[in-house]
Amino acid sequence: MSEIRQNVATQDWVIIATERAHRPEDFIPPADRCLTADRPEFVAACPFCPGNERMSCDPVALRTDAAGDWTLRLVANKYPALRPQGSTARHLDRLDRRMDAVGHHEVLIEARAHNTTTALLPVEQVRAVLEVFRERGRQLAAEPDVLQVIFFKNHGVAGGISLEHPHWQLIALPIVPNHIRTRLETAMRWYDEHGQCVYCEMWRSESQQGQRVVEENEHFVAFVPFAAFSPFHIWILPKAHSPLFFTLSDAALQGLAELLRGTLRRLYLGLSDPDYNVILRMAPMAYERVHWFHWYVTIVPKVSRLAGFELGSGMYINTARPEDSARFLREIDLGEP
Amino acid sequence: MSEIRQNVATQDWVIIATERAHRPEDFIPPADRCLTADRPEFVAACPFCPGNERMSCDPVALRTDAAGDWTLRLVANKYPALRPQGSTARHLDRLDRRMDAVGHHEVLIEARAHNTTTALLPVEQVRAVLEVFRERGRQLAAEPDVLQVIFFKNHGVAGGISLEHPHWQLIALPIVPNHIRTRLETAMRWYDEHGQCVYCEMWRSESQQGQRVVEENEHFVAFVPFAAFSPFHIWILPKAHSPLFFTLSDAALQGLAELLRGTLRRLYLGLSDPDYNVILRMAPMAYERVHWFHWYVTIVPKVSRLAGFELGSGMYINTARPEDSARFLREIDLGEP
Repeated sequence: MSEIRQNVATQDWVIIATERAHRPEDFIPPADRCLTADRPEFVAACPFCPGNERMSCDPVALRTDAAGDWTLRLVANKYPALRPQGSTARHLDRLDRRMDAVGHHEVLIEARAHNTTTALLPVEQVRAVLEVFRERGRQLAAEPDVLQVIFFKNHGVAGGISLEHPHWQLIALPIVPNHIRTRLETAMRWYDEHGQCVYCEMWRSESQQGQRVVEENEHFVAFVPFAAFSPFHIWILPKAHSPLFFTLSDAALQGLAELLRGTLRRLYLGLSDPDYNVILRMAPMAYERVHWFHWYVTIVPKVSRLAGFELGSGMYINTARPEDSARFLREIDLGEP
Repeated sequence: MSEIRQNVATQDWVIIATERAHRPEDFIPPADRCLTADRPEFVAACPFCPGNERMSCDPVALRTDAAGDWTLRLVANKYPALRPQGSTARHLDRLDRRMDAVGHHEVLIEARAHNTTTALLPVEQVRAVLEVFRERGRQLAAEPDVLQVIFFKNHGVAGGISLEHPHWQLIALPIVPNHIRTRLETAMRWYDEHGQCVYCEMWRSESQQGQRVVEENEHFVAFVPFAAFSPFHIWILPKAHSPLFFTLSDAALQGLAELLRGTLRRLYLGLSDPDYNVILRMAPMAYERVHWFHWYVTIVPKVSRLAGFELGSGMYINTARPEDSARFLREIDLGEP
């Protein structure tokens, strides 16, 4: 029998459609697929490849190696959705509400090589990406007009990339999106009723049950949520309560680098480099001390399509049991000590 | 300067990214694209083509022509996401909330021909589709376990189809999705503050301003919303206030058939048969008499991709100005009297 499940933290309902169920193996794409690693290491026309630095904006942050070459670069997006200049004044007509698109839209080029991706980088490099985001997050939190920051990575065409070279993005907004406000309200209500952060309860429960865990370490649990909205949908929850990512300790940051890379590596090896989105979700910048909200990482492999039902209902139909997705990923041999 | 705009009815914020703006013409796909009309009229392996009726379930509703051949068929989905059998009892553990996926999942095969689509059908056939949905909606409203119904159509691979033959779907749910509940609350608050249904105000304002109108008739206005979340995103609002579609009068149903077909025809001709989703959104079935909520049709052409930012924020980046999208569609010559 198919089930409808609810994620208690987001209140989203999902249909787990066992009638049209697929085994995890059914999502593996054809073997002739061009993997990221099969591409050329350098592409002359790529604005993010070494030597083409003048094609992008000046770095906001930079890491270099012993030879003085950059190893990662955070730059303003050349075609930004938001710009630092402008006014946050809202123009409120009865039906038309608008404001300047004031904020930041930046790109983090995560490696020199064109043919790599987070799953294939050394842990130290993934750690450096997270360090730069932590540092930049702290700077943005100090800006009065930045209400919300979202870090994310698009991978592959179905993930929405316009440039192939491996990169992350950050967007800093002068508003709190409706979607995040709804989650804040849900989490606050849970805290009212139970006296606990719902996300703290969730990682403990998942860690204890184990059946949906993909990988776990001292600081984080990566698991397929009980009401995962698509096959291999993953949450990485920090064990220490905190609403904002950039308060992360050095030790926890190392733990996240390991777990994030490990989880993406399971997808790369198990599902032949699927397209995906990774999102680092957190509270609004002013909520550093709230007890009821928790930052986390979510990974959404693009192995199924959203259609009219999803758009119309905000619900999802997941054709893979979360427990099966988790087992499949957990059992992948990472081929590393 | 790019803008952030808010839809007052949904409270969704959208970035209208003029910095990365595209002209409407930029969304026209390559000319060698295979249009729906270029396909074969009959496909032997297609379960929805005439002669293959035994490959689908028995009809829930049927229309036939003078010769006794069916012209449209409403059937239960052979691989349904929800089934009529089961219990609506909820199993509520602290963190795991689940219930049987009880409900209906049906398919409306809208034409005998494999190589047609709503845009190419005669108005009478589109009217027949809407009549069948109105009738089926009334039946479902009488079922105590049906809380919410969604009618929708997926068109093309990016629209999420698994079968090419032209069809619509309906899903009847035993819950009210969170997404719809949020919209109900927003609309109720608007009514509290203004004493008007926000959707009623919106169609009047759009009709009066005219700059975002695509097409209008006595009963409906088709327009690109002020905060359209993607290029050519369209709402068709009924002028008569009603929370539920299936209370529609015969005259209004005829008006909707004309406007829906006309709008889809503009997309077909202007954008070379783009993939899209159409959704008929309405209130929960019990809300037939509420003053603050309004049913409507939304059309989302799949000319851009959702990525990490959209998933992470619930916001959208629209690279086409709604006013430009509307003008482009309004000016298309429909080639009909």
